[in-house]
Amino acid sequence: MTPVFLSESESAALVDDELALAAAREAFLAAATGSIFPVVIGHSSTPGTRFSLKSGAAGDLVGVKVGSFWPGNVDLPRHGSTIVLLDPATGRLAAVVEAAAANGYRTAAADALAVGTLARADSRTLTVVGTGHQAVHEVRAVSRVRPIERVLVVGRRAEAARSFAAEVTAVTGLAAEPVDVQAGVSAADVLVTATTSREPLFDASWVKPGTHVSAMGADGPGKQELPVELYERASLFCDLPQQSSSIGEFQHTSVVPVALGAVLAGEAAGRASDDDVTVFDSSGFALQDLTLAAALLRRASGEAR
Amino acid sequence: MTPVFLSESESAALVDDELALAAAREAFLAAATGSIFPVVIGHSSTPGTRFSLKSGAAGDLVGVKVGSFWPGNVDLPRHGSTIVLLDPATGRLAAVVEAAAANGYRTAAADALAVGTLARADSRTLTVVGTGHQAVHEVRAVSRVRPIERVLVVGRRAEAARSFAAEVTAVTGLAAEPVDVQAGVSAADVLVTATTSREPLFDASWVKPGTHVSAMGADGPGKQELPVELYERASLFCDLPQQSSSIGEFQHTSVVPVALGAVLAGEAAGRASDDDVTVFDSSGFALQDLTLAAALLRRASGEAR
Repeated sequence: MTPVFLSESESAALVDDELALAAAREAFLAAATGSIFPVVIGHSSTPGTRFSLKSGAAGDLVGVKVGSFWPGNVDLPRHGSTIVLLDPATGRLAAVVEAAAANGYRTAAADALAVGTLARADSRTLTVVGTGHQAVHEVRAVSRVRPIERVLVVGRRAEAARSFAAEVTAVTGLAAEPVDVQAGVSAADVLVTATTSREPLFDASWVKPGTHVSAMGADGPGKQELPVELYERASLFCDLPQQSSSIGEFQHTSVVPVALGAVLAGEAAGRASDDDVTVFDSSGFALQDLTLAAALLRRASGEAR
Repeated sequence: MTPVFLSESESAALVDDELALAAAREAFLAAATGSIFPVVIGHSSTPGTRFSLKSGAAGDLVGVKVGSFWPGNVDLPRHGSTIVLLDPATGRLAAVVEAAAANGYRTAAADALAVGTLARADSRTLTVVGTGHQAVHEVRAVSRVRPIERVLVVGRRAEAARSFAAEVTAVTGLAAEPVDVQAGVSAADVLVTATTSREPLFDASWVKPGTHVSAMGADGPGKQELPVELYERASLFCDLPQQSSSIGEFQHTSVVPVALGAVLAGEAAGRASDDDVTVFDSSGFALQDLTLAAALLRRASGEAR
């Protein structure tokens, strides 16, 4: 069998939120029975560069995502992604999918899946903390699954927050404005954090009853976006409990979160009431990448068009 | 930059012992200053399958080898290999090299490098323990670096040993015959073990002074080919001391082996005398794969032809 190669420009042209959301659903449902192997963090000979290897298997999928972070990139985004799929029948190379642009959709799709499962149906105000590249993806994906009417933007630098709000409006058509962190957190029906923070971004008491919080940023030891005091009055969910408790947001608490996949499968309860505060932590896992690559390949071959 | 793809048939047509030996030398010299990251062992949903991720960086090279072992393969070899190189300047995908056939050359080249560095110059009898696919590569590669005149073959099954000896003669033109393990070990100037053994294959007292031993098989916890008693009167070498002492042959002793790269670089002594017994343990490391892929790509682009 000749391996299939999907280039960066091809996958970028093929990906959309619908494809990414379906792939995320498939990955989260498979997480309970699939296999996830230890994550490797490496680097090149140039200081500051980083790559990660996330591998896994579920059903007919087996492979690895090579993620890269080259902070010195100027003409290219700093994050890259290459997904390698093996042929489940032979172990030989089946496909290589370059997916740097698609990776933003993939991560935001996990957020949208959580919001669509856990947030109040009448969530209208979305607050996003963080103004980086990934934050735009989060707003776009989340606004597809809830009737979001306005977007509040919290950023450390006023200029970045203004320009991000303008970009959100351009991409989604939604009203968007920069606010300070307390105003943003207090007004949120859905609160998304997408930062590289290593300490809590806000005070737990600012979060109003009924809010859903998605923490998208913590994916390594020492990273933290949420105040631990929030956990005392919230229902906690994540992608992979063991990973979330070791390198994700819940490394800072002993409470064991519920896998979102279990809620999707009807095996665990989601939001308890309209006053419940729900928290979802995303640290990312290989099956998201494998299902994304498979979905892109199906679309490329015309099966899903 | 568009990634380059080298297919299995292309790399199989390009590889030879000379290319593999040069790539091995480059890798062993780079091992001292390069980076090797933790090895991941995974599997597909089919029981018994296995894949490994070996990643590293040195100089301009950064990437990962995805090795596969699918024991149920019938029409294809059970071992597969795909090498992914990242662009050192951007972290993006630079090349994908399928290298299942080339992998046999790569592993044998490490052996040839060790034999060429450590064995007596007048080594004429090569004994190989093991009659698998890799063992033919070992005989071919080793006979290029020493004046081997005869090959003794030790196998558990007489029929396999006979047929292997015939294959050795067909491939190398050398006289080859099956012998029992004591006869083979006692007569060896160079002794190569290439098995999946989990216990010593022979008695240390059978090894005559001046012998060089290359243990090519031990690459995981519990694997063992050599008797620990041999270490008391031998000089010990390996590819990566830390790895060799954890998953290689030297996991069964507290003696710390010398890196072959240090000998190649003139920073450590090799064989002490014609009576010295030298032992080399190969557990395999990512830089061998990265330099192999780079050499194949150079040859494919015509630079090395």
